[in-house]
Order: sequence, then C-alpha cells, then structure tokens
Amino acid sequence: MKNGNLFIISAPSGTGKTTILKRVIAELKNIVFSVSHTTRSPRLGEEKDVDYFFVDKSTFVTMQEQGLFLEWAEVHGNLYGTCSNTVQAITEQGIDIILDIDVQGARQLMDKLNNKGVFVFISPPSLHELEKRLVNRGTESDSVIATRLNNAHDEMKSLEYYDYVIVNDRVDQAIDELKSIIIAERSRKRRGISGEPLNLDI
Amino acid sequence: MKNGNLFIISAPSGTGKTTILKRVIAELKNIVFSVSHTTRSPRLGEEKDVDYFFVDKSTFVTMQEQGLFLEWAEVHGNLYGTCSNTVQAITEQGIDIILDIDVQGARQLMDKLNNKGVFVFISPPSLHELEKRLVNRGTESDSVIATRLNNAHDEMKSLEYYDYVIVNDRVDQAIDELKSIIIAERSRKRRGISGEPLNLDI
Repeated sequence: MKNGNLFIISAPSGTGKTTILKRVIAELKNIVFSVSHTTRSPRLGEEKDVDYFFVDKSTFVTMQEQGLFLEWAEVHGNLYGTCSNTVQAITEQGIDIILDIDVQGARQLMDKLNNKGVFVFISPPSLHELEKRLVNRGTESDSVIATRLNNAHDEMKSLEYYDYVIVNDRVDQAIDELKSIIIAERSRKRRGISGEPLNLDI
Repeated sequence: MKNGNLFIISAPSGTGKTTILKRVIAELKNIVFSVSHTTRSPRLGEEKDVDYFFVDKSTFVTMQEQGLFLEWAEVHGNLYGTCSNTVQAITEQGIDIILDIDVQGARQLMDKLNNKGVFVFISPPSLHELEKRLVNRGTESDSVIATRLNNAHDEMKSLEYYDYVIVNDRVDQAIDELKSIIIAERSRKRRGISGEPLNLDI
C-alpha cells in the first residue's frame, strides 16, 4: 500500500483557512487532521484525543528530549507539538494527514522533511483585501488588526518556499483548488527521487 | 500573467486516453490540445490548422533543421512534429496545453524541457485488464493485440519517470484525477527552482 501524504498548510490569520480545511476534510475521503499534543487544559467542549492529546508538562518535555516532535511551539506559556509517531501511524495506513501550522513552523519542517511533505500556502487576494475583511468582521481592535496585517506581510514573504499557493479570492474555488492538490498528490510520483513501486501486476 | 503549463500525456494503446483527454478539455477552461505539424495529407473531415498544420516535406525538413520542433517522429513514412513556437505562443497567453505523445517522445522531452513540462502517464489497471479490453473490443486481430500488449509492457517500464501516474480503473475517476492534476499544477510553485513572482500587491 502507498503511504498517505503529509500536507502542511499555512495562512495568515483572517485568510479563511479554517473554513477551507473543514470543508475539504468533510468532502474528501482518507484524510484527517493531525491531533497535536498540548500541555494546556482542555477547554469546554474539547474532546480528549480528538481535539488534542492533553499531557502534563513533564511528559511533554520528555517527549521533546526524545526527539518525538516533528515541530513544537510555546504559545502563551503552553506547549504544543506534533508527534512524529502519530503522523507516521496514520500515513502508514495509507491515510493523508493535514497539519495546520504557522509559517515559522512550516519553514522548520521544510528542512526537516526534505521532500516528504506537501506545503500549501493559503493567501488572501491582497493585504488590502485582508484588512477589509478584518475591519468588516468588527471583532478585533484597531491595534490587533494592525498586528495581524504586519504579521501577514511578514508571512507572505515566505510563500515562495511553499509547493502550492492558493489565493483565497472566492472560497468555493479555493476549496476546489485544495481538493485538487490533495487528489493530484495522490497520483504524484517523486520523479528521480523515491520512485515508490506501484501495485501493478506487470 | 503566469504562463500556461505544458502537460505531456502518454498511455499504452487501449488505455482510454482519448476519452479521458476529450472530456477533460471539454470540462476545463483555459486548456487546449497541441496542434501538430504533419506532412501527410488531410483525411476526410480533418480541418486545416485545427486537427493538424499540414505542410509539405521540404517545409517540415527546414523547420526541423532550424530546431523548431520540440519533438518529431516518422510514422508510416509521414512526419509529425510539435512546433515549440506554437506551444510557446499559447502558454504565453496563460493557456495550458496538452501534448498527447508516446513514451519514447515523452522521454526525449523530459531531458529537453527540464522542469518545464508536467508528465502524466495513464495506465491500465493491469496488463491482464488491458488484454481483456482489447479482446472484448473485437476490432483487432490476435497478432495486433499481442503486439499492443508487448508494447504496453515496454511502455509501462517508463512510468517511473513521469510526474503523475493515473490508473484508469474507472473512467470517471481517471477524468477527475487528471482534472485535479491540471488545477493543482496551476497553483503549484517550483520550490527552489524558478520562483515565479505572484501578482500580489504586498
């Protein structure tokens, strides 16, 4: 059986990534979200081993020291990480896995995974359009919006390192594009690199 | 504007390539078949400059000497070739182009085009299945079928060199896969190679 693919997806905040990912996972077969390990406490409605693997800090640090995390980060004093064994257990069943991860984490994985991951950047049509969306949403203060735009500007400098760039102009089209990328990668071969044998009775 | 992509598609005879290609071209926008130059005479119903560019032998040979053909071949005493200027004129308008070409021609193009072409191999589920299809069709003699199977066996040794392999088990799924590959390649970047700039007002 062919191994599942690992898709690493990044997008500046406000780009519509969550909507796109949920629809794509719902509409395609054989693909799941990666479940991260975290040291923070479960929030209301969060399910153990479904939303996160909740572990205490010493467990996390031990895993970290054993090199078990593909990537990890500290956010607001809590630790989050993607366990490589978990990813491997899923892809070895021939199931694709999506890692929703920020640009910095993705850049680390590019070096680490070599050619084994598929990196997709979801971009707003422009920073101007992103600003309009954030302002219209009306849920963030001016200073939060300014920070997000500033981050987006930095993050978009990295899009050249990704394998695919989807411009989220119309969300239905962006969903189709991501689905196409996932389906295409399933029939993709790494020419001249790995050359996985196909199951053909020739 | 981003240049169109060049898709090079090969398949053993009897694999269903023609059906797949016609449906894909009909269902997608911004993609056309490549029109070849040939020295053979137009057949009934064939349209000049639509089915082929019909040229006399001396014109063909001059073009050949000037290096104007991406690839060319002699079949039953007639010359056929794909003019690189034609391909370029189309892709420069941002339109994708499909080259329907045999394995030998494709292998030449892999060296020549470097990373600029997208190579897709359409495969029968198995040689046994291909034999069944050819026999059921009932239009070819046993010896023709034997030759085709022999060729298919040779051609399938080259599938490892292609970027994508589509196994035509169910034709609708094969069509979806080829459409997905074409759509995905439109948002694909050549990481670390060309890095075409995206039109983003950042």
